[in-house]
Amino acid sequence: MKVAVLGYGTVGKGVHDLLIDAPGFEAGPVLEKEERPDLPFAVTDIDLILIDPTVDAVIEAIGGIDPAYTFGKKVLESGKHLVTSNKMLVAAKGPELASLAEQNGVAFLFSAACGGAIPYLSNLQTAVNSGEEIVRLQGILNGTTNYILDRMQTDCVEFADALADAQKLGYAEADPSADLSGMDSIRKIMLACAVTYNELPVDGMDIEGITSFTREDAEHIKNLGYVCRLKTKAKLVENTLRAYVEPTLCPLGSIESSIRLNGNMASYTGNSCGMISLIGEGAGRYTTASSVLRDLEQIRRGKKIMIRPDCRRVTANNEDSMHRYYLRAPEHTVDDLLLTVYESGKITRGVTDKISVSFMHGFVNELRSQGYDVFFAAVERAH
Amino acid sequence: MKVAVLGYGTVGKGVHDLLIDAPGFEAGPVLEKEERPDLPFAVTDIDLILIDPTVDAVIEAIGGIDPAYTFGKKVLESGKHLVTSNKMLVAAKGPELASLAEQNGVAFLFSAACGGAIPYLSNLQTAVNSGEEIVRLQGILNGTTNYILDRMQTDCVEFADALADAQKLGYAEADPSADLSGMDSIRKIMLACAVTYNELPVDGMDIEGITSFTREDAEHIKNLGYVCRLKTKAKLVENTLRAYVEPTLCPLGSIESSIRLNGNMASYTGNSCGMISLIGEGAGRYTTASSVLRDLEQIRRGKKIMIRPDCRRVTANNEDSMHRYYLRAPEHTVDDLLLTVYESGKITRGVTDKISVSFMHGFVNELRSQGYDVFFAAVERAH
Repeated sequence: MKVAVLGYGTVGKGVHDLLIDAPGFEAGPVLEKEERPDLPFAVTDIDLILIDPTVDAVIEAIGGIDPAYTFGKKVLESGKHLVTSNKMLVAAKGPELASLAEQNGVAFLFSAACGGAIPYLSNLQTAVNSGEEIVRLQGILNGTTNYILDRMQTDCVEFADALADAQKLGYAEADPSADLSGMDSIRKIMLACAVTYNELPVDGMDIEGITSFTREDAEHIKNLGYVCRLKTKAKLVENTLRAYVEPTLCPLGSIESSIRLNGNMASYTGNSCGMISLIGEGAGRYTTASSVLRDLEQIRRGKKIMIRPDCRRVTANNEDSMHRYYLRAPEHTVDDLLLTVYESGKITRGVTDKISVSFMHGFVNELRSQGYDVFFAAVERAH
Repeated sequence: MKVAVLGYGTVGKGVHDLLIDAPGFEAGPVLEKEERPDLPFAVTDIDLILIDPTVDAVIEAIGGIDPAYTFGKKVLESGKHLVTSNKMLVAAKGPELASLAEQNGVAFLFSAACGGAIPYLSNLQTAVNSGEEIVRLQGILNGTTNYILDRMQTDCVEFADALADAQKLGYAEADPSADLSGMDSIRKIMLACAVTYNELPVDGMDIEGITSFTREDAEHIKNLGYVCRLKTKAKLVENTLRAYVEPTLCPLGSIESSIRLNGNMASYTGNSCGMISLIGEGAGRYTTASSVLRDLEQIRRGKKIMIRPDCRRVTANNEDSMHRYYLRAPEHTVDDLLLTVYESGKITRGVTDKISVSFMHGFVNELRSQGYDVFFAAVERAH
């Protein structure tokens, strides 16, 4: 199988490198924006790839929506398989691309878009197809934020220093806002929902990142016997899809607490199989590229799609998702919500009774619009 | 796809139950040893299944080698797919059954034989086929022993009480010797080696179970900051296959330390993908049955074999696997080996320098043959 690659950045170069050595694969041309005399396999015109009858599959590794979407459509229309690691593209245009793949009898797969090296989406799909009723999806789906949270809690460094280290190590991009805000995590769970439930949540998700987390929060939480992780969750209950991401206090000794540095954990719970958790590196050149090669191997075995063309775009609703929250806020701003107060004074710390996710996120956003500095995190019980 | 089941015990009934509800599957006849007027779908003559042209696949859920092997051969020769959860059968006769499947153009899969609900072998196979070079296999592959170790260390119960509870909960069989001795774990890693390296280790493995572990050991280890787990490991280094199972001290906070009760963890480390760990329940009726259904789903997608007919039987050799060991032994029996001594007197406790796995297992077996009571465990460093 001869495989062309669009883009020669972190993922693109990784895939091209692996293709050179992988048995049964052949590294084809690579599309670059500008002439690359140093790369004999580089081309600047996508048509050279599209009209090449020896190219069987094309990897989209440009990122973003445009021109990734236009190029992706052309690839499928030219009768070649399309594989991407671009979660933004799939979250925005997944059903359209799946439809186009089906019309042209080719494959459209995107394992690498969720969980990096972790074979999450492919295992989810197999579980669903084998009759498993998936009752819950959850995970630590962003390596950048996990790295920052872990460094802050393990090495007691400040947020800014942990972020700088993440950037130095290549875990965080120059503009890390999509990671830090939780957007990257929510896009990944959107894909998992599409694969699992044939429903792609496009609004109504509650999204909280880690930018409010401080060293003092880390210390207080540790003393309570918890570790803070950024957890993303989704489930389908009575035709309503719930999907959200938020800082979450996980008990010391839990699997989540053992996910260190840029690690990811992606779990699904099925009625028969119970909870299955997959752990691995969430990002990185060859880790992500390894997921692309797994997709290509699956295409060789006849696999065509991960989401169906009729995948519905739906509005998520987290009003009935209830749990306890840890809160840190200025005095008197959250008193009514707290069941247990750990600290009062200029700063209040405590834990609420069970509250709905959408209420909590809305309440904190309201406080922030008034200029208050608030941190909140779901509290998980030990399993 | 209509599926017959041989045996109606824990796994057999689980599979039959799931088949009734799973879309696209049909529950066929079940083979029982004796007449079962209460089960309208039960038959006592396997020929009734073999000659039934509507049966596409047969699940072997009898256990043991005979008659499972004879029946399995007949199933494949009759042109029907064979799926089994029987690790003893595959460890003994896997290549022969794979060969027979190939000759008859049908499938022979056995995901459920390693890791219970965890999709370990199938992911390993996909990783290998996608060009991943697997540098290490490791895991906590036995739920019974993990349950006992966890209860002893978390709840401070005695070995015998933890075992009795495991039996009450259905985690341990009436005769738990294969679990406790490490044999069950080693059979599972044998299958993983066959899938990964096309080599089935049949002797030379070093096998140590958990029967020497005491409450006092648990307490001492806890104070050192470790948790004891029964870990099974394998790797292929310069054409030599290493494979062994032994109690292992894992640092508090490690993923292993978070595997509680009857949980399993199955990991592989690839050159590109890094370390991938899969966690789930290692045993149980519907968890194991869910793996069988996943295999059936893969057969629907055209998958045929997990090991190749030319899989070689080899002798494992752990002479070059080196690590430090924790030791508890009567005084003066292990003094020369210890680099650090924690306790001396009637009982000596300490940690050795790096020692080869085969030396250590041989040394302790020699001491035991002289009547000495010894506990040993590999010491893992924090990642």
